[in-house]
Parts: sequence; structure tokens; C-alpha cells
Amino acid sequence: MTRIIASTPRADGYRMPGEFEPHKQLWMLWPQRPDNWRLGAKPAQRSWVDVATAISRFEPVTVGVNNDQYENARNLLPEDVRVVEISSNDAWMRDCGPSFVVDDTGGVRLVDWIFNAWGGLYDGLYLPWDKDQMVPVKVAEIEGVDRYKAPLVMEGGSFHVDGEGTLITTEECLLSPGRNPDLNREQIEQHLRDYLNLEKVIWLGRGIDPDETTGHVDDVACFVRPGVVLAAATDDEDDWRYELLQENLRRLEAATDARGRKLEVHTLPMPAIMEITEDEAWGVDTAEGSLPRRPGDTTAASYLNFLIVNGGVILPAFGDPNDEVARAALAGLFPDREVVSVPGREIVLGGGNVHCITQQQPRG
Amino acid sequence: MTRIIASTPRADGYRMPGEFEPHKQLWMLWPQRPDNWRLGAKPAQRSWVDVATAISRFEPVTVGVNNDQYENARNLLPEDVRVVEISSNDAWMRDCGPSFVVDDTGGVRLVDWIFNAWGGLYDGLYLPWDKDQMVPVKVAEIEGVDRYKAPLVMEGGSFHVDGEGTLITTEECLLSPGRNPDLNREQIEQHLRDYLNLEKVIWLGRGIDPDETTGHVDDVACFVRPGVVLAAATDDEDDWRYELLQENLRRLEAATDARGRKLEVHTLPMPAIMEITEDEAWGVDTAEGSLPRRPGDTTAASYLNFLIVNGGVILPAFGDPNDEVARAALAGLFPDREVVSVPGREIVLGGGNVHCITQQQPRG
Repeated sequence: MTRIIASTPRADGYRMPGEFEPHKQLWMLWPQRPDNWRLGAKPAQRSWVDVATAISRFEPVTVGVNNDQYENARNLLPEDVRVVEISSNDAWMRDCGPSFVVDDTGGVRLVDWIFNAWGGLYDGLYLPWDKDQMVPVKVAEIEGVDRYKAPLVMEGGSFHVDGEGTLITTEECLLSPGRNPDLNREQIEQHLRDYLNLEKVIWLGRGIDPDETTGHVDDVACFVRPGVVLAAATDDEDDWRYELLQENLRRLEAATDARGRKLEVHTLPMPAIMEITEDEAWGVDTAEGSLPRRPGDTTAASYLNFLIVNGGVILPAFGDPNDEVARAALAGLFPDREVVSVPGREIVLGGGNVHCITQQQPRG
Repeated sequence: MTRIIASTPRADGYRMPGEFEPHKQLWMLWPQRPDNWRLGAKPAQRSWVDVATAISRFEPVTVGVNNDQYENARNLLPEDVRVVEISSNDAWMRDCGPSFVVDDTGGVRLVDWIFNAWGGLYDGLYLPWDKDQMVPVKVAEIEGVDRYKAPLVMEGGSFHVDGEGTLITTEECLLSPGRNPDLNREQIEQHLRDYLNLEKVIWLGRGIDPDETTGHVDDVACFVRPGVVLAAATDDEDDWRYELLQENLRRLEAATDARGRKLEVHTLPMPAIMEITEDEAWGVDTAEGSLPRRPGDTTAASYLNFLIVNGGVILPAFGDPNDEVARAALAGLFPDREVVSVPGREIVLGGGNVHCITQQQPRG
């Protein structure tokens, strides 16, 4: 039912749509590993239910789950959320999942990147990642969607596209020795051009989580629509992230996109730096070969890690005064979408947020 | 996406179609347990590929597979067969899978029976059967089909329907203490009437495998079409099965169906009794709590265990002189279908055949 296509999306006239284009459905994976999620992942699972419930108000949701958590996920998630068995090592559908591409005739295919748990043997977050690696294949089979196998280590959270030929990413992540050390910047760009059908790659510098995703762009910048970007910023010059966020802003303000437009750049504030508490750290299993969660470790909390859905925006909230500032800013930037806040702390304790745990499947 | 319907198919105007009615697709499960399938299930897997390939010439096939065999199944099965992750304890989709029902407006739902591995703690074939029990739920979720939860231990191989209100089954199986010991014949009939929308249950006596399925009807009789049945028979009066097959024939010849028709009864010969060889028995792991496979054990080989698909009939062959007799008989009974023979020995070594390892999903 599903073919592996030996050519490239670019050669076949397929492109990756922007997240703001219409979706057929949203994909997620159910969290469970006790060496990343505290208290046997129960607080995280509650947050997943919150996120899935919020999204399902706007569009269909399918959640993939390991067999041993299937009954629990099926029972906890709303009835109108589809629950399918898809094994995974953790629950980051954005990063281990596929990137969907479409053509002008209603065709939908997907790109199956190489996944190495954010750095492989260099600085990956866990070993093995064999189940994660198979997620795009299983999504393709369930949906009957043909598949491109891209010869590139990539995660969905390491780039955003405008759907019109422009991609933004970070040098910190894509040029990391943990990703594609045998490829230089130009070779990586060429693969991105081929597999996402691009004309222009805009390189930002760094993200805000060097130890986890190695600086994914989806914590620091995104497209609101073609020609309009949103970037994280802070006024606090003592915040270690101040300078890197300023540098990203400068690059965005200097950039033009694939159509030659100068970008309209907006900013979102950051929540205050959020540390893992002693109680939270004690809730996580210790395990050789997976990232420890220690008291005082800082999280990658960011409002930029929101998700755009059909008619809505799903925004993580942290109990921070800037929660409302971010919400109001997004309401202004997305006047035709309802902004829905969901609790983000339990998700970010595991290393990401709403955007990291979801992957949109565009309408054909 | 999938609801649990609290009423019954009968109350809602849904009925189970005959196997000879048009299918949307065929479901299978991938075999792997080494305490039932010899040589790590590799010969059985080859037969599954043969069967799936044969069916896929006529209609779409979806194969469910445990995660640890996903890559192997995906690589071995033809590209046009859909492979999805569905955990199972063994590979008998007919018995642990759902029974689909349809209404007159294109609606499709499924019946989720209680499954207890052919006898539960009384004389079941293995323990646990927790994964098998979830198969109908997972099929419903993947397909987005609503589900009736029937309060009855049943296997799909223990009955055949004509789609017009008649069911045939065996007393040996349905009245076994391993199935529904707290229900009498009339109560069981009432559940069948409610969940398959029937008017008439025709009770045969016994099947040919008391130690495995406790006498499933799908080894001894089936509907060719409404009003026409086919039954297994042997001329060898020394065969231990001679009398029980004669008794079933007598009952069918005396029966009328839900529409008041006398049944037209045809027969198929049996293959010679087939024993497990010493080499074959040595290929199977021994395990506490699962049925041993010993040299000299007789198998349940039967031509009745064929499958009707859109435009075809998939018939097991055993290298027996009657292979061709059965093939010719089916060609005559199904003049509009192509009869395709597939190797049946490896499948019957594990306890069933083509019909036992498949489950049709009707068109809506």
C-alpha cells in the first residue's frame, strides 16, 4: 500500500507546507519512560491528555502508543482521539516523526529522516532509538502514504518552513558533530532543498537547550505566515540567553526569504528561567545512557514551542506572568485562530513542549 | 474516533454479511511464537507471505505484527500489503479478531467478542492472551469503526453465517465448559441473535480438533452462498472422523435456514490424516502452559479451511491426492471465482489454516 520513492520531493513537485496551512490531522506519541518522565510518567500523561483534548477541538488527533500502555492511553484520552499502536523510545513525535509533503494535485507523501536521538553516539539523549526510527514507516503504512527516505539526520523541531521555499534553522543543531558530521553546510542545505523543496535556508545561531536538542529552532523562532516570523526575546541582559536571542533577531531582521521579501519580525517574551525542583528530580528513574534530571537543572521553557492547528493555537503556560503576555501577543498575530493555553511544565520537565510532541499531517 | 456502542447490532439494524459478500479488505496477524511455530516461525512466515500475496491479488490486505517482528514482516510481505503494529499472542486473526457488521446505509461496525485462547483456564491453548484480547479494539481504532462489546466468549472460526439470518456452529465448541459455562444453549443463541442479527442457529455436532479449537465449524462446514452449504466428508469408515462428519451431514440435510429453505448440501473430501514428524516436533520450543507439538500428533488439516475473497477462493494444499479434487470441486461451486492453492502444511502444524489466519472486513 505504501511505496518507497527513490527520487526526491523536489524532483516530483512535492513541498512541505507551513504549519499554518490546513491539516488533515495531528500525530502524537504517548509518554511513558520513567527515566525521563517523573512519577512513572503519570503527570506527563495527564498533560498529553490536556494537549490532545485541546487539539481535538480543532482537528482529528491520532496518538501512537507502546502496547504496554495502550489500554491506559485509550482509556484516558477522549473518545474522538484515535489511539494506534506505534512503539517508540520516547514521545517526541515532532522529532522522530515524518515530515509530510504535498503536491498541487492533492498528493501527500512523507519524508522519513534519519533519527539518532538528538546526537547519536556523540551527544544523543538515549540509546537505543530503534523504535523511534521506525515511527515514520508505521505512520506511512497506517495512512497509506508513500515515503521518501532522506539520507540526512534531521528532527522536525530543528526547522520551520514557510511553505513557499524558505526554511529557518540553527547552526548549533544542524552543524553539530552529533548530526551529519560528514556533510558541510552546503551539502546539508542541498539535502534540505531536495527533500523539502526549498530555495532559501535562513541560518540562525543558537537555541536555548545545548544539552538536549542542541538548539532546536522551535524553541526560539517560527513562521506566523509567509513573510512574517516570530522570535523569542528577553529584556534581561543578565539572562545567559539574552545575547543568543538578540543574535537570532538580528539575523532574522537582516534576512530575505525565498520570494525576496524582507521578513516582518515579531517577538515573544520568555518565561522566567525554570529549574527542576528536588521533588521533581527524585521522581525520575536514573539510568545509564539517558540524560539525568538533577535538581536545579534549567528547563527549555519557551512560549515559542506552541502549535498551530486548524483555527487554533495551542500554547504552553507555565504559571508565569508572561503567560498572558504571550497569549495576548499570539491572539494578535493570529486573529483568525483561537489561542488555547495548556499546562506546559510537566512537558518541559522532559525536554520540550507542545510543538515537540506533535506533528501535523497536511490536507492533500 | 471510535465509540463503544452500548446496544446490539440487531437493535441497530446491523448484520454480519456472509464471507462471500464483497470485502473492503482482509486482516491477518503475523506468526512468531516459537512454542507454536517451528524453527522460529520462519517456515510459517513464508506461508503467511504466500497467503497474503495470494489474497492481495484480489483485495487489500492489512497484516498486524508485534513490534519486534515489524521490520521483518514489512520487508518480507509484498509492498501493496499494509503492515501495521498490532501486538498479539499468536496469529489467529479469525478467532481473536473482530466480526464486522454492516447496515443498509453503508455503515460498518464491529463486534468485539471475549477471547480466552480457546478455552481459558479450562482447556485454553496458552496463557496469557492479553494481547489477542485487544486486537479488535486496535482494528476499530485504525479503521475508525464503532464497536459493540459482546458479553460472550466466541471465536470467528466457531461459526459461519449466510448473511440472511442463519448461522452454523458446533455444539462441541459453543457448549464447551471452556467457553461460556454459565450460559445454556438458549442463552448463547440469544446473544448470537443479538450480536450477529440472526433468526436461526443450525447446530452441528463436532469438529475435527478436540484438543485445539474444541471443534471449530470452519474445519468441517461453511456457506457457499445463502441456501448452499459445503461440508467435509470421508469415505474411510476406519477414519475416526467418519462418524462425526456423517452426523454433521445428516444435520445439515435435515435443516432449514432462516428463510425456511432446505439447504443444498455439497461435500469436500478430506486430506489423508497428517501427522507431525519428529523433525517438525523438534523445531518447536517446549513451554509450560502452551500446547505441546509431539511427533505423531495428528493435525487438523481440512480443505474446508479455505477463504472466500473478492473474485477468488484461497485453498490450502497439502501435497495430497485430494488437493486437486478439492480444487476442482470449489471451482465448480464458485464459478465466478478463481481458486488459488497455497501451501497449507506449515499453517496446520500450528493448529489451523487459511481461514483461521484471516478475517474479512466487508464493504460498507
